[in-house]
Formats: sequence, structure tokens, C-alpha cells
Amino acid sequence: MNAETDAPYRALERRAREAGIEGEDWVRFVENTRVRSIPKGALLVSAGEPVNDAWFCSEGLFRLFYPLPDGREYNVAFSTENDYVTSYGAMATGEPSAFSIEALEASTVVEIGRGVLRELMDRSHGWERFVRLAVERLYIRKEERERQLLYLPALERYEAFLRKYPGLDRRIPQYHIASYIGVSPVSLSRLLRSRRGR
Amino acid sequence: MNAETDAPYRALERRAREAGIEGEDWVRFVENTRVRSIPKGALLVSAGEPVNDAWFCSEGLFRLFYPLPDGREYNVAFSTENDYVTSYGAMATGEPSAFSIEALEASTVVEIGRGVLRELMDRSHGWERFVRLAVERLYIRKEERERQLLYLPALERYEAFLRKYPGLDRRIPQYHIASYIGVSPVSLSRLLRSRRGR
Repeated sequence: MNAETDAPYRALERRAREAGIEGEDWVRFVENTRVRSIPKGALLVSAGEPVNDAWFCSEGLFRLFYPLPDGREYNVAFSTENDYVTSYGAMATGEPSAFSIEALEASTVVEIGRGVLRELMDRSHGWERFVRLAVERLYIRKEERERQLLYLPALERYEAFLRKYPGLDRRIPQYHIASYIGVSPVSLSRLLRSRRGR
Repeated sequence: MNAETDAPYRALERRAREAGIEGEDWVRFVENTRVRSIPKGALLVSAGEPVNDAWFCSEGLFRLFYPLPDGREYNVAFSTENDYVTSYGAMATGEPSAFSIEALEASTVVEIGRGVLRELMDRSHGWERFVRLAVERLYIRKEERERQLLYLPALERYEAFLRKYPGLDRRIPQYHIASYIGVSPVSLSRLLRSRRGR
């Protein structure tokens, strides 16, 4: 590793250690993955296409969204610094991805090929654990979101968004937040005015 | 193991072998888990309560549902023979479960304590893999369901239900299917009449 590529691996290395990965197992990971810069507006994953990699976002911001038949887009999640970003189901099964992933800011990711990940998991209990914990995290978020959409009124969904993604409300246009909490941009503006008035 | 408890472990043992579990690792699992009979109508998990176990359903049928504030219930999944059944997020995090799990038929499960699962994963790469694959499966289903609710009209959601749970339409009341595909029981009856008329 050199100074330029070192930084993106730092947060990952901490997590890897927590899963019991060190020495040769870590070196092999670094040697078989690469750092990529993703320009703002680029698609990391396109709906309908297969997905051969997982990424760890070390800098920047992504949104995961379904393109709807009527032309609208439905945001299901965001990924920011020190978070995974991929279409996991598509990567695991080989099926085309149902959603797209777009960089909302110029971003830096560590790109991990599906074959590399499999090999690491075969060789090492630690990498198997690392992936188990990552998938667990993805799963728990889906459960959380399901619960929020079922139980919380729109304003509380907005508050939950602020807690889950601190500072993100200042980094993305409001219509992306509206699409995430499941209301129209107009309804969200109205909600936020009433919130400020409280 | 004896003849009575042997059967529930059989499908599990096959999956365990696929994940590379054998010998001592399998024996330890059998010795530290137990077979339980769950009467029809009993709750395996109650919304609002913590969850200390995962189960493998070897016989019978469960539904996972959110009790809604207006008194209705929203079915998110079913579990039948040779499938896992638990409130995984609650079990993994220690938080109370957001949903309940009810036996719709007299059922037989293998009960796996959370502490036992952790110990097995610590000792054995194979068990870590077993759990990683199980969580992956849960996650992929959630993605699938998300996609269906977004893209498919009600009748196609019903067809998807039939494909995913073969024969289940003859085992449960129609209103449970309606709640799962997200329409009222009246709308579902109407849909099914139009389907038969095609």
C-alpha cells in the first residue's frame, strides 16, 4: 500500500480486525481489491444488469433506487462514508439487479470482486464472519425500514431519516429525501414548514 | 438421538454438511438444541418481546405478522417445512421484536438458543458459514418482496405467492393471503374470480 491508497482501507481494516482477520488474510484482501474513484452522477450498478462486485464507500455518497414504470424513482437507501454499497442479492445469486446505485457525490470506494470474496470466505473463518456481519447489518436495516414504513407517520419517518443519516439532509436535494420517506416533494415541504413552526 | 427426535434434524443435517459441518461440530449442535412441539395458534414470538432463539421448522406452518395500530394484522412472510423461522433482527441485536410469529398448524421445530449459536460460530468456520447463508437467504427474500410490492400488480403478486409457497393456498384461510399480498380480502376474492374466468 502507498499513501494514496492507504486511507480507503483504514476503516475496513478496523472492521476486519474485529472479525478476527489479520496477517496473511488481510494482505491477501488488499492485494486482490482496488481503490476506485466514482464521479458524481455515475451509476455503480444499473437495474437489469448483473453485479460482480461489492464496494466499501470510504468517501462520498450513494443512493440505491428503483426506477418505477411511471418514470419516478424510489430511493430505498443511502450509503455514506464507511459503509458497504452493493446490490447484495444480485451479487449473491447472479440474477440481474432490481435497483440502480448512483453516486450523488464524487466518491472513493474499495472494490471487492465476487470471486475474491468467495475465495477469502473459503480460506478464512474471519472473512466468513466479516461477510456474515455485513449481511446481518443489511438485513437488519431492511427490517427497520419495513417497520418504519408500516408504523410511523411521515414526519417521524423524516426524523428517523435524520437520525440514521446524520447531516445527509444538508448534502442531498430534498426530493431525494421525499422519495426515501415515501411522500411527494410538495408534502415534504409542507411537513418541514409545520415542523419549523412547532 | 433416538427415533423420535431424529427426523427433525435430518433436513438440517443435510444443510449443515453443505456448509462443511460434520463430526464433533454436528454432535455439539444436536446436544445443545432441542425439538419442540408448537400447538396450532401458539405464538413463537410476540411483538414487543425480546427473542432468544432461532428455530428450524421441520413440520408445520408459521406466519410472521405485524399487529397494526388499527387492529389489523399485516403478514410479511410464512415459514413451512425445512425453513428457518425467527425474528432475526431482534435475536441478533437484543432489541424487542417488531413482529409476532404464530403457528398456523401444529408444528415441530428445532430450537437453537442464541448463546449456542454464537458459541458454534466462534468454534467453527462451518457454523459461521451456515449462519451467513441463512441470513443471506432471509435478506434476499426481503429484497424480492420489496421488488414485488413495488412492481407487480395484485394478481401477479398472488401468482408469485403461489410459486414461492407451493400448496400453501390450500392450507391457510384466504384472508391471510390477502394480508400478505397487500389487498383486502374482498379485493382478493374478486381477483380470484376474474382469474378463474380467464
